[in-house]
Amino acid sequence: MEKDEIRRHDSFQSFDEICSIAEEKRVDFLLLGGDLFHENKPSRSTLVKAIEILRRHCLNDQPVQFQVVSDQTVNFQNAFGHVNYEDPHFNVGLPVFSIHGNHDDPAGVDNLSAVDILSACNLVNDFGKMVLGGSGVGQITLYPILIRKGSTALALYGLGNIRDERLNRMFQTPHAVQWMRPEPQEGCEVSDWFNILVLHQNRVKMNAKNAINERFLPRFLDFIVWGHEHECLIDPQEVPGMGFHITQPGSSVATSLIDGESKPKHVLLLEIKGNQYRPNKIPLTSVRPFEYTEVVLKDEPDIDPNDQNSILEHLDKVVSGLIEKSNRKAVNGSERKLPLVRVKVDYSGFTTINPQRFGQKYVGKVANPQDILIFSKSSKRSQKEAKIDDSESLRPEELNQQNIEALVAENNLKMEILSVNDLDVALHNFVNKDDKMAFYNCLHYNLEETRKKIGKDSDVSKFEEEDLILKVGECLEERVKERSSHPTDTPQFTSSMQSIENIRSKNVNRNRKCSLL
Amino acid sequence: MEKDEIRRHDSFQSFDEICSIAEEKRVDFLLLGGDLFHENKPSRSTLVKAIEILRRHCLNDQPVQFQVVSDQTVNFQNAFGHVNYEDPHFNVGLPVFSIHGNHDDPAGVDNLSAVDILSACNLVNDFGKMVLGGSGVGQITLYPILIRKGSTALALYGLGNIRDERLNRMFQTPHAVQWMRPEPQEGCEVSDWFNILVLHQNRVKMNAKNAINERFLPRFLDFIVWGHEHECLIDPQEVPGMGFHITQPGSSVATSLIDGESKPKHVLLLEIKGNQYRPNKIPLTSVRPFEYTEVVLKDEPDIDPNDQNSILEHLDKVVSGLIEKSNRKAVNGSERKLPLVRVKVDYSGFTTINPQRFGQKYVGKVANPQDILIFSKSSKRSQKEAKIDDSESLRPEELNQQNIEALVAENNLKMEILSVNDLDVALHNFVNKDDKMAFYNCLHYNLEETRKKIGKDSDVSKFEEEDLILKVGECLEERVKERSSHPTDTPQFTSSMQSIENIRSKNVNRNRKCSLL
Repeated sequence: MEKDEIRRHDSFQSFDEICSIAEEKRVDFLLLGGDLFHENKPSRSTLVKAIEILRRHCLNDQPVQFQVVSDQTVNFQNAFGHVNYEDPHFNVGLPVFSIHGNHDDPAGVDNLSAVDILSACNLVNDFGKMVLGGSGVGQITLYPILIRKGSTALALYGLGNIRDERLNRMFQTPHAVQWMRPEPQEGCEVSDWFNILVLHQNRVKMNAKNAINERFLPRFLDFIVWGHEHECLIDPQEVPGMGFHITQPGSSVATSLIDGESKPKHVLLLEIKGNQYRPNKIPLTSVRPFEYTEVVLKDEPDIDPNDQNSILEHLDKVVSGLIEKSNRKAVNGSERKLPLVRVKVDYSGFTTINPQRFGQKYVGKVANPQDILIFSKSSKRSQKEAKIDDSESLRPEELNQQNIEALVAENNLKMEILSVNDLDVALHNFVNKDDKMAFYNCLHYNLEETRKKIGKDSDVSKFEEEDLILKVGECLEERVKERSSHPTDTPQFTSSMQSIENIRSKNVNRNRKCSLL
Repeated sequence: MEKDEIRRHDSFQSFDEICSIAEEKRVDFLLLGGDLFHENKPSRSTLVKAIEILRRHCLNDQPVQFQVVSDQTVNFQNAFGHVNYEDPHFNVGLPVFSIHGNHDDPAGVDNLSAVDILSACNLVNDFGKMVLGGSGVGQITLYPILIRKGSTALALYGLGNIRDERLNRMFQTPHAVQWMRPEPQEGCEVSDWFNILVLHQNRVKMNAKNAINERFLPRFLDFIVWGHEHECLIDPQEVPGMGFHITQPGSSVATSLIDGESKPKHVLLLEIKGNQYRPNKIPLTSVRPFEYTEVVLKDEPDIDPNDQNSILEHLDKVVSGLIEKSNRKAVNGSERKLPLVRVKVDYSGFTTINPQRFGQKYVGKVANPQDILIFSKSSKRSQKEAKIDDSESLRPEELNQQNIEALVAENNLKMEILSVNDLDVALHNFVNKDDKMAFYNCLHYNLEETRKKIGKDSDVSKFEEEDLILKVGECLEERVKERSSHPTDTPQFTSSMQSIENIRSKNVNRNRKCSLL
């Protein structure tokens, strides 16, 4: 949110607080679950700020008291091939280990991510990057970082984000996922290793295709750090019958204003000795307060469907209540950030109101006046089944990967230059990675390729670039409009962006769903 | 040229060679004249490679034997505010000092450049960044880095690239440019300091508006390192009456295939003791060979204007000659890179031929088969004056900053959303900084602003985004076409890009002109 006047510093303050806690508690290392960056191509300013925070906290005279005893060139696949604190030219006192998430995942010819820049600077130990074959199910092998400190032996497995569908297929294919176990060492049996896995995937139980079932993970693991999910469920939960616990740190700032994000944010300090561990949860105090609630207009007795003012009055009451609730939580005397406030309004049977106009009176009172309200319509199905299963009615309409692909494939564009595959990848990047240039790059690449092909034949001259772009743009927009169930008071010229926002927010809702189930 | 299969490694090899020489010769520091990056937003891959090269050569156990005695927070305006080798957490053995050029100049809200990322990583000492006021002539103050080693005292002034027109105005305005001189120190009078300036500007004598006249520089300077100019004129040249010498290192790889780039590339090892210095030029051996020549078709007796084959035969002879010439220079036994070859063809009175098709037979023999030939028409003026002043005839048609601005301003777009100023800046960034996203960003920003403005009035719904983009796109393209004196065999669909390429190549020719005068 670096362009938001109010919220621009939030992420940096959280990250700084996390690094400060690690430094203060003199932890052996800091482990990140991916998505250090929210955008695949973070701005120069964000990159520089991240580097500055890492430099301030990770470089110091604190001795590193553990050893990495595995083959480091296998664990750390950058040009230097060793753990950062062993580089003789850097004074690393707080090593950071991180896998990549779905936002900051590797891309381009060299398969590099933004985290690779931090890794090239020797500030982060990037690991868990898998090389997947282009076609077929493929195969991955997880080589743990083997860490020893005194009598404790830790095998740290990292698995950077892979599309859930693909990882699922791999988990269901024999031998597709290989878990390497440490060789027996002097005074250390295989069973003596404490095994941690850090991964970055959806964690949903009901639709197995678009999320990872924890029961696919091997039973020799002792502890799982589950990234990607936004809700902070820091207390390790046991998975019955599997023999491991899972901690889900959640995002360290609210990046999507869903229910799960309104719970307090924490980091976990994990102490390990032999096969025993002790979790200590530590609240983050720099995180901006966030209050969330849901309103079903037709269930409110004080609202008159024929009087829009009664809707406004009711919603004002709800929002004021949330602001008060947030203020009550404020520690006395401490500097208080403006709260985030989100009200999800089920407007079935009513008309919507303009969220921007509604928010104007809350400027200076909340951090997000422009999007306090979000409108939804309960789906027919859930209305029908509401009495049977209450939790079902909360399930948002789902837009899974298949829907995205279908949206592109079904629209029958009859494209001669752009391949459906490329457009599919672009849409995926736009929605899931916030890559604003995804479509531009896709077009540009394909135009260049086509030009090269036809460049040899200089007779081709009736071919206008704009024709092509417009043709594709119109078709796509049309399809998105058709599919959009968004309120229709949106001015026409923003319809395309709104629809995409719609897709994106539904996608975010997937995360929410898992926390509700 | 990272996307060119053949030339993609050239820049990195040159930079690596330069760093290797510095390391091997155990220099006190390495001084760069700007444009370490050719693009304002270098790719992740390029950034990572640059970091890797710097890490390998600059971090080592070599002791740094000089001291910076000036106020470092003034000299180095990053978050850390000190010279990199004094940071206790890095083992810097080879400090690098660099100003920014016109390609990698600071931009955005935080005024950061790609070099700032290297500076945040503590690998480069970025200096000479000036803060200019928005309007008026403005004022800049140059605070030198004061360096002492034994009895030698060095004042290092850095001036990152400023638009030539603006810097010229400043030089001609009293007190607009302030040169700070060192305070007298113990055992070191003001006159004891050896004063070096590094700058990154056009260096042309005839059109004072678009280049910096060396006579504007103060006489107390002893030595100038002049960046930006592509031709390598490494031997220090005295400027009569000014009391200083100028070295012009040139670009370390040929980035534009002009005559000046075909001369051998060097770096300068400068030894300073007291007020004396000794220059040692060192040739770069990793640079790809480049042969250049010019052909005037109507002066060639063996060409029949009615027989295109005779043109082809002649040009083939010329190109083969250049390839042979390049091969003869090859050191026996050493690994030889494919040469770059450029023939500038004055085709007045003839038709052009397709350069791509011509180059096909040189695939595998030269590094740039696609653009060996470049066609030009001698301007009427230079034809007329050819007998009076031969050097004049070589002067390329000029497209200066005023022309660019005029191109935008004169076209009378009647724009209601885009401001002429913004479009002007975008065109400037596109041409001078290789910022491919300049127009997109300009449009995007202005659309967003406009949306915000009219967003409150939801009645506005007849307004389509595509309308706006197309309207602007068409007008601009039309104007560029009108102005374009480019051969007309270009297929229509590339006309817009070709015209821009035209502007760009003229711009590059400005650099060339200065070396001819």
